[in-house]
Amino acid sequence: MKSLVYNNAKLLTVVDKEIPEAGSSEVVIKIAYCGICGTDRHIYHGIMDERVKPPMTFGHEMSGTIHELGAGVTGYEKGQKVTVRPLDPDKDCIACRMGYSHICQNLNFIGVDSEGAFQQYWKVKADILHALPEDMDLEVAALTEPLAVACHDVSRSGLKKGDRVAIIGGGPIGLLIALLAQLDGADVRLLEISKERRDVAEDMGIKTIDSLTVNPVEAVFQWTGGDGADIVFEVSGSKPGAALMTGLARPRGVIVLVGIFGAPAEVVLKEIFLRELDIRGARVYQSEDFDRAIKLLHENKAPWRKVISKVASLEDAQSCFESLDEQADLMKILIKGN
Amino acid sequence: MKSLVYNNAKLLTVVDKEIPEAGSSEVVIKIAYCGICGTDRHIYHGIMDERVKPPMTFGHEMSGTIHELGAGVTGYEKGQKVTVRPLDPDKDCIACRMGYSHICQNLNFIGVDSEGAFQQYWKVKADILHALPEDMDLEVAALTEPLAVACHDVSRSGLKKGDRVAIIGGGPIGLLIALLAQLDGADVRLLEISKERRDVAEDMGIKTIDSLTVNPVEAVFQWTGGDGADIVFEVSGSKPGAALMTGLARPRGVIVLVGIFGAPAEVVLKEIFLRELDIRGARVYQSEDFDRAIKLLHENKAPWRKVISKVASLEDAQSCFESLDEQADLMKILIKGN
Repeated sequence: MKSLVYNNAKLLTVVDKEIPEAGSSEVVIKIAYCGICGTDRHIYHGIMDERVKPPMTFGHEMSGTIHELGAGVTGYEKGQKVTVRPLDPDKDCIACRMGYSHICQNLNFIGVDSEGAFQQYWKVKADILHALPEDMDLEVAALTEPLAVACHDVSRSGLKKGDRVAIIGGGPIGLLIALLAQLDGADVRLLEISKERRDVAEDMGIKTIDSLTVNPVEAVFQWTGGDGADIVFEVSGSKPGAALMTGLARPRGVIVLVGIFGAPAEVVLKEIFLRELDIRGARVYQSEDFDRAIKLLHENKAPWRKVISKVASLEDAQSCFESLDEQADLMKILIKGN
Repeated sequence: MKSLVYNNAKLLTVVDKEIPEAGSSEVVIKIAYCGICGTDRHIYHGIMDERVKPPMTFGHEMSGTIHELGAGVTGYEKGQKVTVRPLDPDKDCIACRMGYSHICQNLNFIGVDSEGAFQQYWKVKADILHALPEDMDLEVAALTEPLAVACHDVSRSGLKKGDRVAIIGGGPIGLLIALLAQLDGADVRLLEISKERRDVAEDMGIKTIDSLTVNPVEAVFQWTGGDGADIVFEVSGSKPGAALMTGLARPRGVIVLVGIFGAPAEVVLKEIFLRELDIRGARVYQSEDFDRAIKLLHENKAPWRKVISKVASLEDAQSCFESLDEQADLMKILIKGN
């Protein structure tokens, strides 16, 4: 079978591997699609070599069908459409003991810390499968994992109908949070410096603020009648985003930290104090977030599909990673497994 | 009457003023004691001149008795022991409309933004009085305001019996939070770089960690069996405190921001994400925090009184402010009004 391997910074190759065999409690999945995540882009750039241990096949935002069921796996059948929640917690740390295994302090994030889904067949433990409806389109189903991230972020925010929501950063996760928040009844503004990305968002029905040429704090306060946003999602993972986020929120407002910050960043802590803000970290997802994401994609009540910019082959993956570095308007690219 | 006036940086004078007269809905209080707050020290250093508008009498941590009741004031009598919740909100901003007038976005903090209590008599609106029990000692009653701060901080944290609580910074508020958290059943460690302050805390029965010579993250993880603290109070308002706070908390732990940061500070945002931490600002107090503080001081089940390092006259106030700059082991100094 064909498998996409990360060798070193900016060098991916398609190699031939044996189709894996399902051991006890395992399944082998025939991959339909696997999306390129921001984390995958970090891997491609060589800044996660310590975790990835190249050469390795990566990728984790997938959809597919069951190719082989290992001994003891029940509740699934061959050919069934599935997706995978790619988390393998140690079940022993304080987070796991408290019931928050998604933030396990020794988490094996499958597709990053261990072999992933940019290949034709993929072997995983059956207990992290999620069944997909029979009539589900497998292309849109590959958005389950990123939409589960958005579900988790919105769930952490405590969003209520009518809330005014500011989102900093208009990449794929920012867009999915915006669409979901709107579906849940919020009034949304997406703050984004790139015109190309704002155009993509507007095309999906998301209102945007040009945070490069407009003062974003003034714009948000004008929009909210001087109150500030009820909820702010920081999705950019950027220093300007960290410096900005507290200034956008109303008193007792909630800020959800979604973006990953590689280095410490300056925060206007005095605003957290003066307005009694509440900043909450949100990492990956829990099982119920996956369930909700599947339901949402199946119901098809928001233009989720518009987040997909392109579908390409394993052979074209390298050029897709290159394009993502060059074109701000490219959102999600799906790599076809078969 | 005698009144302590802030003129400019490090220059306080005692001047003679007319005893004020109570207007409608007002009372004049005969001041018993007024404590020196960290904010008062900032005023003394001249870094709050824009808000204070010198020459002005400041101070807000007081106890006293009613000297005169203005027209329409009911429920109080002359000579009654009282304290004042020194907040005058605009009742119109988003915070006030949401029921959080203590974080009014145009708050008049009485004793900072308008005339305070470092004097013999003080005129205030009757609706911010809190009655004190008849047998209450007025010296300890002057701790109501700072203890109300601690009550609010602990309330914001959601502290439960058995929680492991790390407190960064061993000034008066840090000590009061520590005593209160212990009274509420928490296991507390106070992180403090000054030996003098650690000695004061230990003398009150508070366990301390020397965060200058010991790695405080390692010390907290050792103490908590590798879990991290359930709750962290950042009370230092310092850049090292901001950089440290996220590293001390367990997954899904709560960090309460109590210290006031004059400038943006670096925060390890990745830890908020990885552990899904919850950072909450806590500013001043609500009416119920004042009620609880009075009850706690009256019940006398913790060594609150040990927070008081010294009692001095209005004439000695200037030298007290000077001493506070020089002696780390000085905690609360009370200035006698009469």
